[in-house]
Amino acid sequence: MRILITNDDGIGSRGIEFLVQALKEIGEVTVVAPLKEQSAVAHGITMLIPLRVVEFSKNGEFFGYAVDGTPADCVKIGIRNIIKHTPDLVVSGINNGSNAAINIIYSGTVSAAREAAIMDVPSIAISVTNHKAKDFAFAGKIAKMLAKEVVDKGLPLGTLLNVNVPDVPESQIAGILLTKQSKSKWEDIYEQRVDPSGRNYYWLTGNLKEIDTEIDTDQAAIKKNYVSVTPIHFDLTDYSTFEKMKSWKIEELLNGKKN
Amino acid sequence: MRILITNDDGIGSRGIEFLVQALKEIGEVTVVAPLKEQSAVAHGITMLIPLRVVEFSKNGEFFGYAVDGTPADCVKIGIRNIIKHTPDLVVSGINNGSNAAINIIYSGTVSAAREAAIMDVPSIAISVTNHKAKDFAFAGKIAKMLAKEVVDKGLPLGTLLNVNVPDVPESQIAGILLTKQSKSKWEDIYEQRVDPSGRNYYWLTGNLKEIDTEIDTDQAAIKKNYVSVTPIHFDLTDYSTFEKMKSWKIEELLNGKKN
Repeated sequence: MRILITNDDGIGSRGIEFLVQALKEIGEVTVVAPLKEQSAVAHGITMLIPLRVVEFSKNGEFFGYAVDGTPADCVKIGIRNIIKHTPDLVVSGINNGSNAAINIIYSGTVSAAREAAIMDVPSIAISVTNHKAKDFAFAGKIAKMLAKEVVDKGLPLGTLLNVNVPDVPESQIAGILLTKQSKSKWEDIYEQRVDPSGRNYYWLTGNLKEIDTEIDTDQAAIKKNYVSVTPIHFDLTDYSTFEKMKSWKIEELLNGKKN
Repeated sequence: MRILITNDDGIGSRGIEFLVQALKEIGEVTVVAPLKEQSAVAHGITMLIPLRVVEFSKNGEFFGYAVDGTPADCVKIGIRNIIKHTPDLVVSGINNGSNAAINIIYSGTVSAAREAAIMDVPSIAISVTNHKAKDFAFAGKIAKMLAKEVVDKGLPLGTLLNVNVPDVPESQIAGILLTKQSKSKWEDIYEQRVDPSGRNYYWLTGNLKEIDTEIDTDQAAIKKNYVSVTPIHFDLTDYSTFEKMKSWKIEELLNGKKN
């Protein structure tokens, strides 16, 4: 099994090392990850400046390819120009911090896996639910377990798994649950400060407003110490509104105005 | 009606001027747009560096607020800290270039409108299907027409409209169609070049592989000169796979391994 590994915390981060360690046990691993931290870059890709790729070592040994770009760039250029074959699986992580609920939208980790899904490669994004997480061993075990499941059972083309692992000792893990994206959202706060030249600047901060009570959502599951596994896709069409909007008769809008 | 306008081509671009002109006729407009071009930044938000906001003039008059960040940043800080009220509508554009099919995923224009939808504000993203488009007057007319429809008929919370306007003379426009996101995708090519120091760098380019034949998709509609209107949302859950994956029994995975 050939596995491409990436992340959004950068190739120098700790989480990706645990992922490499765990997945080496079941396949041939290549790392193509961002040179610099790319948290919250979402599904950005680099178009306005050219990309550069450098070989990156850890402890005197070749560790992987570092791309001066986004997580989605890494998957694209990794498959097209670096490994030059279609891997059996792409795994992104292990991220420092939850990628549940609305965080899915902003996440570079999830977007890297989503780019793989766009390229018809099965993929998994995996995160530990604490920005300061230090122990990724259990999450690595989960990644390995789910990687085998995905390759064994197969995912529909265009679908990826978004996995969130509670940052608690393994003995406190309640289990694994299949979940849906929660509707919890951020109440943003922009903290205003003044620089030494007297000019304002703003830091984004805020609180996640938890509005889900159902255990079958990612946010509720991780709160109860379950590992959450959410199948997501990149078809953003709102089919329910599509049906409702037929009554708007927008195809008639222009007729009146054109005459 | 109070309307917040943003884009991803930057506050100095031409398309946003046409949008302001058109929407001023039906409401009170505030512009909060990126200082620099932000094409393909998707739903990135600025977390690692602070944001700055400056007042931006055109032709000696105040035009709007320029944010040194992403389109999604503009909507967040625009609503929270600049206009400090909830607008009736957010409109993003008019973008130079199509935001149909998979481009929805990479688009800063669409992500700005999606950020509004996350904040429970009705929103529209509007693009002209040519990177070199010069005439945005007809697209402005469409934006005005749909803005009135959205405020009049109401969109479900969390839904936005993604509008693509063919870059042809108005007389050649075939009509307006309600559409779904097409499945057409990019066949990426990374063009490899060598810099004067002898180091490689890569430019992303490629071709859109058109695989849709149904007129009810955005890509097929714009090819036939229809204005395409697609309702999209930010719930990425793949409900169909969610149902299928119940047979994987992932909740049993850990039981065996833990013992």
